[in-house]
Amino acid sequence: MATIKVPANTSPVQDAEALHKACKGWGTDEKAIISILGHRYSYQRKQIRQAYEELYQEDLIRRLESELSGDFEKAVYRWILEPADRDAVLANVAIKNAKKDHHVIVEIACIHSPEELLAVRRAYHNRYKRSLEEDVAVHTTGDLRKLLVALVSTFRYGGDEINARLANSEADILHDVIKDKKVNHEEVIRILSTRSKAQLLATFNHYRDDHGSSITKHLLGEPSDDFHKALRTAVRCIIDPKKYYEKVLRNAIKKIGTDEDELTRVIVTRAEKDLKDIEEVYLKRNSVPLDQAVAKDTSGDYKNFLLTLLGKED
Amino acid sequence: MATIKVPANTSPVQDAEALHKACKGWGTDEKAIISILGHRYSYQRKQIRQAYEELYQEDLIRRLESELSGDFEKAVYRWILEPADRDAVLANVAIKNAKKDHHVIVEIACIHSPEELLAVRRAYHNRYKRSLEEDVAVHTTGDLRKLLVALVSTFRYGGDEINARLANSEADILHDVIKDKKVNHEEVIRILSTRSKAQLLATFNHYRDDHGSSITKHLLGEPSDDFHKALRTAVRCIIDPKKYYEKVLRNAIKKIGTDEDELTRVIVTRAEKDLKDIEEVYLKRNSVPLDQAVAKDTSGDYKNFLLTLLGKED
Repeated sequence: MATIKVPANTSPVQDAEALHKACKGWGTDEKAIISILGHRYSYQRKQIRQAYEELYQEDLIRRLESELSGDFEKAVYRWILEPADRDAVLANVAIKNAKKDHHVIVEIACIHSPEELLAVRRAYHNRYKRSLEEDVAVHTTGDLRKLLVALVSTFRYGGDEINARLANSEADILHDVIKDKKVNHEEVIRILSTRSKAQLLATFNHYRDDHGSSITKHLLGEPSDDFHKALRTAVRCIIDPKKYYEKVLRNAIKKIGTDEDELTRVIVTRAEKDLKDIEEVYLKRNSVPLDQAVAKDTSGDYKNFLLTLLGKED
Repeated sequence: MATIKVPANTSPVQDAEALHKACKGWGTDEKAIISILGHRYSYQRKQIRQAYEELYQEDLIRRLESELSGDFEKAVYRWILEPADRDAVLANVAIKNAKKDHHVIVEIACIHSPEELLAVRRAYHNRYKRSLEEDVAVHTTGDLRKLLVALVSTFRYGGDEINARLANSEADILHDVIKDKKVNHEEVIRILSTRSKAQLLATFNHYRDDHGSSITKHLLGEPSDDFHKALRTAVRCIIDPKKYYEKVLRNAIKKIGTDEDELTRVIVTRAEKDLKDIEEVYLKRNSVPLDQAVAKDTSGDYKNFLLTLLGKED
């Protein structure tokens, strides 16, 4: 379930006018910006952008970029984009980031539905005039490249049918590779990047039943190079996206100084989808509500914006 | 340009009734079947199937399969399917074929536009409840698997923009690999499977300009294992699909006994697209019109059907 609260009757034209007013003259009315954009669904934000363009012959995004700054600007920019376009931007930033945010690529590839991933790849074409897999391939090497390119290129079957015999035999293949610490990861990459999610869940269940421990636990025993990190992330994203996101949030908040990029990404990308469920997982795991943890670690307009997306008003 | 001839006014219901009559009772009126289906576009054949189903509560395809036989049946079956669905069937047969028809997979991956390839992958999901890349990956190994999986999984950028500097440097990379006969084909696979077709054509042009000979010519000096065969096919399909198809037809006809599967595939898949252009290339290369060559090598209903698709009546 989503966390954002959206009023029943809204008008794109009135919203555009109010945003124009908030940006006009000296100073910016950040509160007004938050109170509008933080309470609109993706399709409504798109309508607002269109209305704004028609009314003022100006791109609302550009205007906001010039008015806002810092983490708040970044969060608003991420939020106002359509989901697939936003993910294209997130992927592109992650690809070029020296910090090696491979987990962002893996998230997009493994948490999205097959059709959603396709929409991101299409948005990537439109925005960068290149393909997502093309840029991933250029910026990575070795096994990591093989894994990431395969994950972003796949168009998994989306149905629920599973083949139990196959799940059994592929659980054994995964176990053999992990147990024997084989250098050749072809089979692991093949299984993770081509099988349907339903099939993979069945395979992971067999793994746990037949080999005494979960695949994620066994993977923790592996070296922590970039390839194995991405592999673990992929498995966790496929098994339980909400639990995965809870951990991203926990680490972002726990970190000295807070990791705003991570915090923003999870809240912005999930606020319209399942952030309510992620909040529940967070509360269970940390015994403190997510909004309280966020409020403690952030400040100013950025804090107000995130709390609005979390459905909590000041 | 297409070769089939389609009359101005047709009625799906009348066509369905005529087909029903052609299949009724003892014996089948193959001529009537050819004269209807051989003169209808893909969307019209779909309407006929729907009309037939409504009128007679029977699947037209099943009925035709039970009425017809041999190469003629196969050709009609291929022809009546929608293009993306037909390619899904062709790919599936090729994947499971012991003859190793990898070139069929490469054709579908490299000749289709990015959106057409996507439509085939979608049709593959619908028909087989698995993904195309999943089945390709299971039935191949080693470098061949890497190449084929990458080719069927790619969603290339479809625009015309090219990066000349990149074309230059990647032409050098390809040349180094081919010249030094390197075992590691990662870079060749990366370039061929992720770059846009416009970019690849620019790269191949640089290759020829800078290294004295075309990449296809240099690839002929490589070993003729399955991987290198598929690699050559991919390059040829990207450079000039019509020339590629001409050669497939030439080899199919030249072969002792004729390769009906190849002949059927090219004629059925291209009759509505560019078979007219392929005919021209064929005539230039062989000094004999394609329809004459086909007529000489085939017989009976199969021959009549192919000639109808070629726009030539008896």
